[in-house]
Amino acid sequence: MLISIDQTVKLLTEHDNILILMHASPDGDTIGAGHSLYYALKKMGKKVIAKCSDVIPERYSYMTKLNENEEFEPDYIVAVDTADPRLLGSYEESGRKANLSIDHHKSNLMYADNTYLDSEASSTCEIMYDVLLKLGSEITPIIADCIYTGIITDCGCFKYPNTGVNTHICAAKLMQAGANYVEINRVMFDLKTKPRVLVEQAVLNDMKFFLDDRAAVITIESDLLNATGATEDELDGIASIPRMIEGVEIGIMLRQKGPGVFKISVRTTKYVDASKLCNKFDGGGHARAAGCTINGEKDEIIAMLIKEAEKLI
Amino acid sequence: MLISIDQTVKLLTEHDNILILMHASPDGDTIGAGHSLYYALKKMGKKVIAKCSDVIPERYSYMTKLNENEEFEPDYIVAVDTADPRLLGSYEESGRKANLSIDHHKSNLMYADNTYLDSEASSTCEIMYDVLLKLGSEITPIIADCIYTGIITDCGCFKYPNTGVNTHICAAKLMQAGANYVEINRVMFDLKTKPRVLVEQAVLNDMKFFLDDRAAVITIESDLLNATGATEDELDGIASIPRMIEGVEIGIMLRQKGPGVFKISVRTTKYVDASKLCNKFDGGGHARAAGCTINGEKDEIIAMLIKEAEKLI
Repeated sequence: MLISIDQTVKLLTEHDNILILMHASPDGDTIGAGHSLYYALKKMGKKVIAKCSDVIPERYSYMTKLNENEEFEPDYIVAVDTADPRLLGSYEESGRKANLSIDHHKSNLMYADNTYLDSEASSTCEIMYDVLLKLGSEITPIIADCIYTGIITDCGCFKYPNTGVNTHICAAKLMQAGANYVEINRVMFDLKTKPRVLVEQAVLNDMKFFLDDRAAVITIESDLLNATGATEDELDGIASIPRMIEGVEIGIMLRQKGPGVFKISVRTTKYVDASKLCNKFDGGGHARAAGCTINGEKDEIIAMLIKEAEKLI
Repeated sequence: MLISIDQTVKLLTEHDNILILMHASPDGDTIGAGHSLYYALKKMGKKVIAKCSDVIPERYSYMTKLNENEEFEPDYIVAVDTADPRLLGSYEESGRKANLSIDHHKSNLMYADNTYLDSEASSTCEIMYDVLLKLGSEITPIIADCIYTGIITDCGCFKYPNTGVNTHICAAKLMQAGANYVEINRVMFDLKTKPRVLVEQAVLNDMKFFLDDRAAVITIESDLLNATGATEDELDGIASIPRMIEGVEIGIMLRQKGPGVFKISVRTTKYVDASKLCNKFDGGGHARAAGCTINGEKDEIIAMLIKEAEKLI
């Protein structure tokens, strides 16, 4: 059932042994929302655990550093930033049901007993800020860091279309509350690991241009992760590199998944429907971002994709 | 003489034939401040010219597209975002003096008859927003685009320490006024020209690590601009690439200026004073960014720099 912010605050206030769940492959928004709620509820004297079925990457550790998860039997489960209960991992498998879902994904499957959803918000953290204010929580510096992180990671540092007027108002208030915004931005957007730089180097060296430079193709072959030491997390955003080049309408990434198997990611800039290109190869997605899987050799796959791309450009 | 915002608004109101000057090597802030003021004063029925001694790069054309500079003899000269009159180029050489300077640079040389300075503001555009409101100007979409551009380019899209609470408040109001923020951010931060990508590729391929990966060095040799077709404008920010790598404290760029002559840019992350390193080679600058010029061969210069860097790290 969809509920209001006041009902949400009432439910959180009424329960004293709360398990907060973040989604698998955790990102800044789920960690920020989960931990800001954790710190606020702890300050209210409640027993709280904030958990994720996956390990939280090291670069988010400034948010989790005061988390002292204790052992107890929770009587209320709150899922944050989680549209699909399957993303709750082992908690979902255990058969227990989330009591409350706080989320900004329009695609929320309404799996919880109660759902507080604002799909206009840039992020779950933007929603959480208002929830915490209504709970009467002080926005401590670590809470400000958590909420600020969720906002900027979900709205691409105020660049994406989901950035709203309220997103900036919220950022202003978080700065006043002491959010360590310079360092958080550095870690979230500017800092690259050495393996990531090596991947970018390899990808740029191998980039190929087609159709009068309106299409560009990069490839990540199986051995690249081993050769560079990069992890999956470090490949984030690589597919968008070709599209950043002026004049490129269609950016394509081939990611080798096995011998003769490539996962294709298509990103477009303005007018080509990426999902139409991927539909040709039994894939799909959105207008600006889509994907498919193709079996074959690299050069032959590129030729096939470019042939179809030419019809759309 | 330093004047208040009210005096600034009074002076602008009193004059009817106004020349607005932007600084040479124009950036988003000077173009945004100059053009937002231009459009506002035009709307008030004044004769206005907004000029720059250098050509305004094409990617800023969405701000200048409604500029219909007409010929007339100005009786009042306003310099925007310009700390030093020498940056006014031919206007400075003509011997005419700026009547009013609107600026946010602490280093403003107080060259104009009157100066309205707010060194706490992220950008001259952040100041200009308040000036225009006090002038009674409507913030039209193109004015919002201009001011938004100056703010984000000077504060690195809300990432740099000069971002203030008011910077976000101002961004929120500009979004409400119709600033085309998604496309502006794309053009200012995400879009790269093909020559720029080729420069990055060359620089990454040649990057060398020293001192247990705490120092990284890149080199731009004379022939790279010719080989890639890149312009000076397209090298912007390249010096910061090494510092973006996790663990790198000292990032060094060698830029060949002639046979055996290299301009050195040093960028540091947290604790090494870049100006101390450059002082050793008769250069200087700030704690996080400094420069010097060294004569010699590339490898020999790198060895000298790393030897000194080792003492500071």
